[in-house]
Amino acid sequence: MRLPIVLIGAGRIGRIHGANASADNRIELRYIVDPVADAAAELSAMTGAKAVSLDEALDDRDVAGVVIASATQTHADLIERIAALSIPIFCEKPLDLSTIRAKACVDAVTKSNIPFVLGFNRRYDPDFARLHALVRDGVLGNIESIQIISRDPSPPSLDYIRANGDLFRDMAIHDFDVARWLLGEEPDEVSASGSSIVDPAIGEAGDIDTALIALRTSSGRLCSISNSRRTSYGYDQRVEVHGSLRTARVENQPETQLLVSGDEGRTGSGIKHSFHDRYAEAYRMEMRHFVSVITGSETPRTTVRDGLRALELADAAAQSLKEKRTVQVQYVR
Amino acid sequence: MRLPIVLIGAGRIGRIHGANASADNRIELRYIVDPVADAAAELSAMTGAKAVSLDEALDDRDVAGVVIASATQTHADLIERIAALSIPIFCEKPLDLSTIRAKACVDAVTKSNIPFVLGFNRRYDPDFARLHALVRDGVLGNIESIQIISRDPSPPSLDYIRANGDLFRDMAIHDFDVARWLLGEEPDEVSASGSSIVDPAIGEAGDIDTALIALRTSSGRLCSISNSRRTSYGYDQRVEVHGSLRTARVENQPETQLLVSGDEGRTGSGIKHSFHDRYAEAYRMEMRHFVSVITGSETPRTTVRDGLRALELADAAAQSLKEKRTVQVQYVR
Amino acid sequence: MRLPIVLIGAGRIGRIHGANASADNRIELRYIVDPVADAAAELSAMTGAKAVSLDEALDDRDVAGVVIASATQTHADLIERIAALSIPIFCEKPLDLSTIRAKACVDAVTKSNIPFVLGFNRRYDPDFARLHALVRDGVLGNIESIQIISRDPSPPSLDYIRANGDLFRDMAIHDFDVARWLLGEEPDEVSASGSSIVDPAIGEAGDIDTALIALRTSSGRLCSISNSRRTSYGYDQRVEVHGSLRTARVENQPETQLLVSGDEGRTGSGIKHSFHDRYAEAYRMEMRHFVSVITGSETPRTTVRDGLRALELADAAAQSLKEKRTVQVQYVR
Amino acid sequence: MRLPIVLIGAGRIGRIHGANASADNRIELRYIVDPVADAAAELSAMTGAKAVSLDEALDDRDVAGVVIASATQTHADLIERIAALSIPIFCEKPLDLSTIRAKACVDAVTKSNIPFVLGFNRRYDPDFARLHALVRDGVLGNIESIQIISRDPSPPSLDYIRANGDLFRDMAIHDFDVARWLLGEEPDEVSASGSSIVDPAIGEAGDIDTALIALRTSSGRLCSISNSRRTSYGYDQRVEVHGSLRTARVENQPETQLLVSGDEGRTGSGIKHSFHDRYAEAYRMEMRHFVSVITGSETPRTTVRDGLRALELADAAAQSLKEKRTVQVQYVR
Repeated sequence: MRLPIVLIGAGRIGRIHGANASADNRIELRYIVDPVADAAAELSAMTGAKAVSLDEALDDRDVAGVVIASATQTHADLIERIAALSIPIFCEKPLDLSTIRAKACVDAVTKSNIPFVLGFNRRYDPDFARLHALVRDGVLGNIESIQIISRDPSPPSLDYIRANGDLFRDMAIHDFDVARWLLGEEPDEVSASGSSIVDPAIGEAGDIDTALIALRTSSGRLCSISNSRRTSYGYDQRVEVHGSLRTARVENQPETQLLVSGDEGRTGSGIKHSFHDRYAEAYRMEMRHFVSVITGSETPRTTVRDGLRALELADAAAQSLKEKRTVQVQYVR
Repeated sequence: MRLPIVLIGAGRIGRIHGANASADNRIELRYIVDPVADAAAELSAMTGAKAVSLDEALDDRDVAGVVIASATQTHADLIERIAALSIPIFCEKPLDLSTIRAKACVDAVTKSNIPFVLGFNRRYDPDFARLHALVRDGVLGNIESIQIISRDPSPPSLDYIRANGDLFRDMAIHDFDVARWLLGEEPDEVSASGSSIVDPAIGEAGDIDTALIALRTSSGRLCSISNSRRTSYGYDQRVEVHGSLRTARVENQPETQLLVSGDEGRTGSGIKHSFHDRYAEAYRMEMRHFVSVITGSETPRTTVRDGLRALELADAAAQSLKEKRTVQVQYVR
Repeated sequence: MRLPIVLIGAGRIGRIHGANASADNRIELRYIVDPVADAAAELSAMTGAKAVSLDEALDDRDVAGVVIASATQTHADLIERIAALSIPIFCEKPLDLSTIRAKACVDAVTKSNIPFVLGFNRRYDPDFARLHALVRDGVLGNIESIQIISRDPSPPSLDYIRANGDLFRDMAIHDFDVARWLLGEEPDEVSASGSSIVDPAIGEAGDIDTALIALRTSSGRLCSISNSRRTSYGYDQRVEVHGSLRTARVENQPETQLLVSGDEGRTGSGIKHSFHDRYAEAYRMEMRHFVSVITGSETPRTTVRDGLRALELADAAAQSLKEKRTVQVQYVR
Repeated sequence: MRLPIVLIGAGRIGRIHGANASADNRIELRYIVDPVADAAAELSAMTGAKAVSLDEALDDRDVAGVVIASATQTHADLIERIAALSIPIFCEKPLDLSTIRAKACVDAVTKSNIPFVLGFNRRYDPDFARLHALVRDGVLGNIESIQIISRDPSPPSLDYIRANGDLFRDMAIHDFDVARWLLGEEPDEVSASGSSIVDPAIGEAGDIDTALIALRTSSGRLCSISNSRRTSYGYDQRVEVHGSLRTARVENQPETQLLVSGDEGRTGSGIKHSFHDRYAEAYRMEMRHFVSVITGSETPRTTVRDGLRALELADAAAQSLKEKRTVQVQYVR
């Protein structure tokens, strides 16, 4: 029997989860909830799920899980409401832009004791997952330093930034999570530099578009994160982990294996250009993992607490940038 | 409205086409035909198609196309029977192991004038298709020579060889088709060398497991094909085209973009290991193309005549190997 | 006629310059000066130059240039003395470990107006030089950020560190120079993180072995420098420059072009393991450039002031690390 | 004490050997012999060797070895004359264009029992040598097939071809030697295809500019050789060896490790463009090996008999091309 699932949000990310849920033969995507009627109708037509109001969806006692893919500012309220109903939740990142609200999410999930999976997609990417396995299994020796390069193809609109948070909370938050996952220790110091060299309007709006972040754990492991809102050649997603025995790195995925040689040198294809192409498999794995967590065969790989921790690092980075100093991270219990 | 399709054959290749047909939203996979009841039942359960006899399937006047994925020796009879009913056909390669029967297929298809697509999967692979576009658009200049490397991971059983033809007719036939497609001219000379160095039993059964084939066109273009039934590191599928201006090559597809460096050097992942992984996208494109051919929006990219031509080259190669001489290819009209 | 040159220092780096000078057909390596008689004698035998005292060497009025490759703490005194004699100088990096003494070197060179070349080898490496040309010629567009990875194969002895300066002044000083050269602007903010995770004894001696440094220029260009005293797979020297139009990167140089594929994946050779292998060509180019500067056909590519500037950045990094804050660089005039 | 050496030939290849001999500290390049006085004088000025007549050079009883780098048609006579004087010989490939004369060289060298090294440069290339070591040490398992790609950047003049032999005897002869070396067995069958598609004038002069050659040994190992007189992107020198356990390949050497990424994809530098760049290290190793053979510390890696065997394969290939059949190689004793 397939698990009846509700999808909240029929926007860009909602369509990705909707398509994957409807293609997963353990899921029955039963309802789509979106205040934008056209978006809901379109995704409904594509997947066969019924477009309904949130109340209608949650009134169905058979619902086995909810996928939250709506606007960021709705996440925390939805988590609290759905957790109170004891329905398993998959929530897109971030929990919220405020650590106070994020902490409330942690409390709600903890209290209700529901299965909860956070959408930190990198952890579900096959290449990143293999890298993590090498770290975990000691193949690299003691981890000494990590380099994360995470660069978007082109800057978002100012409206997007206003709704989804600044560079640290919207973009680097993925990298904070990857750092915590691979470092195997919580960073206790953060220092950040930044500028708005790609688009001055971003600077005028109070955000940055280019950043360097340094993390340090108590045992002395270092992690650098390099972010940019612009990359001339695609969606640049690389990470390398230096251990005492070996280094492992994940390189970008080329679009083809075609190579053309001539007077101009040897030209290979570009790399994947968008997050949905680059992490297509990761999104599929997220849905599968959510089902496995609901059915109890797996424990959550990305927890509600991971969402809070990444946000706390984003806060520390923002503070470091503003105060031009290294910030000691204060984690809430 | 979806096109009602019949799939004949629920074996290894039948399951690939069945899965792709059932995932294509322009197709209704209506019937599965296979004398092995268990295989038919299993694929039927997976796809929702009904397992029936061939007679039953062809009695349905609404059937819009038939996918032939049954054993090689059944292809020609099926083509003649289905062509006579004027139903569009997608047929797995090869048409037949005999050029006489293959010629009969050409005649049957020509006479009935049905849409017909042959399953030469390389032409549907995105990387190969981009390579062909470079050739066609003159980016490489005048084509001077081509190198095709096509190596299986491990040798098939002797039973498989008996049913599916020798190395030239079962395996190299793909490469003959790629050669014709990229050369842009018909080869008129063939010369082949071979041995059974991988598995002597293959030699005792009258076949070879390793081959070098040279093709030459009338304008002097050369093409080498290198085949082996064994590759220590996966399914080796490479081609390079040397033109007067540039060279383009398609390299193997690595399984991941992970690279581990240490005392032992820099180790990347292996390449894809099986034809269904390597050509997964090509098989999806084949089904889409078949639908587009049925609906008239595309003309067949791989025709029944292409099947005959490749077989004639395989015959010439076998003759060259046996007679230890360069053979002039005799194409039937 | 060949230019008579004096080499001061017959240690590790002195032998490199000695071999290159004696192989350069525009140079006559006339004298070798080293208080360690054995070292001087050995290099003398190898190159045919005469081992003499410094006084003897400088008494020869025909001497056209001096190569300073002696211990770091001798550099500044030698520069002052030789500049006073108006003899052209090539000096290994760094000028000195103190900015006060380095400033004195700048003053001495400025006052005497002699040709002076500093041994920042990266600028003479063909790959780095091509990268710089792309930046200079605008091929990359406006430079937005730079990533420098500079990692030694294994940590030096504590004695070495005591004599040659800490990580910032001995090792990162090269990267500060590369950053200045590629950024095209002086960094005005520096922030550094570090740890002694490779070898705790380095930490006990007051130094670090792993560092992350962030530089920011007034126009908002960012540069990250990642240093480590240990690399499991060789001498790791990479840099990438992200511009508004393109990114260019210099990758490590593999020792061979051999690739072995099997069950274990695809293994390429390791990269070059030592600075003298990796920068062999750069050292040759340095000597050639020194001759060209002496003869007036080129102007110094790496000036005495470049040596001061890099040291000022090292000082700022050390201060940032100690005070856990972003430091505004104070450049002396 | 340095070994006094005579160099015969101050042309393109003579200058390479001259420069290497004069830089080798075990060699004293004493004489240069070339009927073209200007060429001899120029190389004499560069190396310090004395330009003399052949008689003068050979009259010097101290001469320890002769390097033959003169025109092909002079090789055999010189070998016979110098062998009769019992002076060690290094001879550029080929011995001669005729197997009869080559056999005479073998006889002369055998009779005089002098140290003799043939200039098959591939065997001295570090990458090729490592590949051979993997084969020899069994790392690849049983060798099953080999692919040699050997392509010149651009076709030579017709005059060059007349003096130096056709494609098989001038160019592929290197590849025949590499094939014998890596196969570990003598090929007993040869079959060749060819055309003059690069330059029709080459065809009119009776030669080809593009070739495919297949070799087969008695145990069934296959080797393909792909030659062209034109390569749009440099000097294409690749080889791959497929064994039962692993495959090893030598890739082309890029000129730099610079990679530029943008809209147009990822463009790396071209590969080395000329044989003297690509095999610069191999030529240095040849001279060193010659000295070691003269002094008795090494035995010749490339013998006079290797020169004959490669020529016999070239003859067989020419016969195969002409007679359009597989040719059984007849090796002289």
